[in-house]
Amino acid sequence: MNYSIIRYVLGTVLKFESLFLLLPVFVGVIYGERSAWSFLVVALMCLGAGGLLSFRKPKSYVFYALEGFVSVSLSWVVLSLFGALPFWVSREIPSFTDAVFEAVSGFTTTGASILSDVEALSHCCLFWRSFTHWIGGMGVLVFVLAVFPMRGGQTMFLMKAESPGPSVEKLVPRVRTTATILYGVYTIMTFVEIILLYATGMSLFDSVTLSMGTAGTGGFGVLNDSVGSYAPHLQVIITVFMILFGINFNIYYLLLRKKPGAVLRSEELRAYLGIIAASGLLIAWNIRKIFPDPLEALRHSFFQVASIITTTGYSTVDFNVWPQFSTGILVLLMFVGACAGSTGGGMKVSRIVIMIKNMMKEIFLINHPHGVRKIKLDGRTVERETLRSIHTFVVSYALIYVVSMLLISLDNFDFTTNFTAVAATINNIGPGLSMVGPAANFGIFSAFSKYVLIFDMLAGRLELLPMVVLFAPITWKRR
Amino acid sequence: MNYSIIRYVLGTVLKFESLFLLLPVFVGVIYGERSAWSFLVVALMCLGAGGLLSFRKPKSYVFYALEGFVSVSLSWVVLSLFGALPFWVSREIPSFTDAVFEAVSGFTTTGASILSDVEALSHCCLFWRSFTHWIGGMGVLVFVLAVFPMRGGQTMFLMKAESPGPSVEKLVPRVRTTATILYGVYTIMTFVEIILLYATGMSLFDSVTLSMGTAGTGGFGVLNDSVGSYAPHLQVIITVFMILFGINFNIYYLLLRKKPGAVLRSEELRAYLGIIAASGLLIAWNIRKIFPDPLEALRHSFFQVASIITTTGYSTVDFNVWPQFSTGILVLLMFVGACAGSTGGGMKVSRIVIMIKNMMKEIFLINHPHGVRKIKLDGRTVERETLRSIHTFVVSYALIYVVSMLLISLDNFDFTTNFTAVAATINNIGPGLSMVGPAANFGIFSAFSKYVLIFDMLAGRLELLPMVVLFAPITWKRR
Repeated sequence: MNYSIIRYVLGTVLKFESLFLLLPVFVGVIYGERSAWSFLVVALMCLGAGGLLSFRKPKSYVFYALEGFVSVSLSWVVLSLFGALPFWVSREIPSFTDAVFEAVSGFTTTGASILSDVEALSHCCLFWRSFTHWIGGMGVLVFVLAVFPMRGGQTMFLMKAESPGPSVEKLVPRVRTTATILYGVYTIMTFVEIILLYATGMSLFDSVTLSMGTAGTGGFGVLNDSVGSYAPHLQVIITVFMILFGINFNIYYLLLRKKPGAVLRSEELRAYLGIIAASGLLIAWNIRKIFPDPLEALRHSFFQVASIITTTGYSTVDFNVWPQFSTGILVLLMFVGACAGSTGGGMKVSRIVIMIKNMMKEIFLINHPHGVRKIKLDGRTVERETLRSIHTFVVSYALIYVVSMLLISLDNFDFTTNFTAVAATINNIGPGLSMVGPAANFGIFSAFSKYVLIFDMLAGRLELLPMVVLFAPITWKRR
Repeated sequence: MNYSIIRYVLGTVLKFESLFLLLPVFVGVIYGERSAWSFLVVALMCLGAGGLLSFRKPKSYVFYALEGFVSVSLSWVVLSLFGALPFWVSREIPSFTDAVFEAVSGFTTTGASILSDVEALSHCCLFWRSFTHWIGGMGVLVFVLAVFPMRGGQTMFLMKAESPGPSVEKLVPRVRTTATILYGVYTIMTFVEIILLYATGMSLFDSVTLSMGTAGTGGFGVLNDSVGSYAPHLQVIITVFMILFGINFNIYYLLLRKKPGAVLRSEELRAYLGIIAASGLLIAWNIRKIFPDPLEALRHSFFQVASIITTTGYSTVDFNVWPQFSTGILVLLMFVGACAGSTGGGMKVSRIVIMIKNMMKEIFLINHPHGVRKIKLDGRTVERETLRSIHTFVVSYALIYVVSMLLISLDNFDFTTNFTAVAATINNIGPGLSMVGPAANFGIFSAFSKYVLIFDMLAGRLELLPMVVLFAPITWKRR
């Protein structure tokens, strides 16, 4: 393994984090908050540590999948640890474990909180929570690649390890241009949401933080009832943008290049929108008696469906008290997740589409033992490589899931709590059901369980393999 | 598709069922019970229907995987429907849906009951419930193949479709001899258990019924508290036999042929015993404070672990009230299941071992991009065919699971009930947690949900594909 390039990547990421931390400093100064100092101090620490690590150029720029996985997973760990420091140093979150949980939840765009009263936080802390969503959504290394010229042709492995989906592709031949396009589209869409929310009556601070949380499909809000107390039309705007940010960003690039035909052909997009429509209608029917009029049931139903399938995690009501059929659909959507190449988490719609097609192929082959059938997505044959990686993903997923559930069950909460706490973290959603429902928080867990869930959030955001490789003994064996 | 051979197989199965039904008639005569008449009437109906269906020889003996799947799944449906009739005709189970549920639960060796008071049943009904476990455990078509000479060389497809495990092999070149050996070993082991239980103090009726339930890894008992009120040493005997019947029967054949080396090399056997030992010890530690002395905790822990991993479903205590860590392990074991080629259900230990090895291989390949590594089990390379079938199995499993859960959640019971009700039926276990825990029963569900769970029991017993193929539109398309 090329350790020197990993060191260099880590250093670069830390230097970028010191820049990111200046934004909450700026917010703190505006609001005249003491906590701004904590952010400044940590920003300087990041700059120092980053400078030390990246001072010496790497001995070699050799870069393979292994280096990609290890530098991405380590970057995220380091990013989260430093990102947690301002919460802790400012004493706004007095427990270090809780501060790390909150930071990891932010960067991984989970949005699960250990806080029972977010309104007690300072503006700079609230801003930082939402800003970590924004950076984590599209990816910190994608950001680095977009603005920082890195030598060596294989930085694609960094992007592959950080970007979600069964097969990551470049939009254009150059990695750096691809990263720039992605962040460009992302930034513009975020600004459009901010402007829409602000223009229709939301305060500027709330518009900015909520839009960043929507963009990254994060879920941290600035009010204790999440999005529940905003006007209905604001909830509708957020619903639409959640759905938009759950779409593969390749689609927007195709639209920019005026190729609507290719967009309409996208099977993942059609499946994604179909699932949202079906789930929204079924839940609205199921909860119709809870709300005075059907439109309200539809609004709440589609908000929650969009929030869960995109793994954002905002809520307008406490869906934990909805009938079991509705909560059942929501739990199912937690696993489905958003589209590949979006900022959302979960298993991703395309993986599920491919798996179902693979099953249909087997049934076809039983009926036609001498038949030939290839699995295609959007008219293109799915490579055997991709199928293999999906199987590895599913098995790793199941293993991490059951081990996590067993470990946190030592805290002896009920089965639903344990099951959905892992679902809500590994899929980067935020709220679960029962004791971790939308009206509750993750502060109930022991420190040990919190670290298990922190691992799950990171593993989920990086689509498992980078974290699995980081912890596999074979990776650290001398050769 | 060769419809005539399927008709012929169905007819043959029904004729065998009429023979099976004579046993409870005999039991009813001994105890002087009126219900014996119901069994006699249904036996005659089976004979008539079976005779009609198999009167004309099949036009052709052509037999492929498709015919194997369809005739096995249809056989099980027909077997269960006729097997339900005596319960219903005798009015001992007045609802037809409930009678079908009980019969399917019997044949599929699930052991989930809709009855709140089994002690109210007649001896002939109790005997029939346990006898369906015994026949269903090793398989009715394996039984037919063992005693009935069937023409056509490809009856192997029947055995493949009915026997559990990722790759079914014949013990000896002839299918009929293989089936005879399997049923021979099975019968002898069942008799050994009957004798041991009877000799150490259990009544003859209870010894016979409980041994048949253990052998088929079924779970129907004859007392309301399952195995809870039998003497401790009887519970220990049952524990040992549950574990024995969860082992691949190839192992016993190897022992008969005096090949202990091959037995010791079996990775599935080692994993299976390892999981039992680890789970039993962890749970005993977790529940140590519930019981007055550690030996009692160990006895109850290992009984429940053996009962769940082998998917039998007997219980000595209400484990629903155990701490979450213990119930969490038990729920996990529900999915693991017993060894391939045993009478147990679940995913099977060998499938899980192969999936984990496959994951390790991928991690190895990330570390050694140009390395070569094959997945081996017991020293033999796992065929790509087997891997593919495992992936299809897992995807079908997950799909059936979530759809079933959503459908039964319309009854609006809690999440734990819905989740474990599906787990307990698709894995052929019996009891779940919460409202379907060991002290409760499945009578709470609506008729609709019962049919969903009936499908799950059949799908689980036949390892999904036969039932999936039966319901796939492509199977019934004219070619």
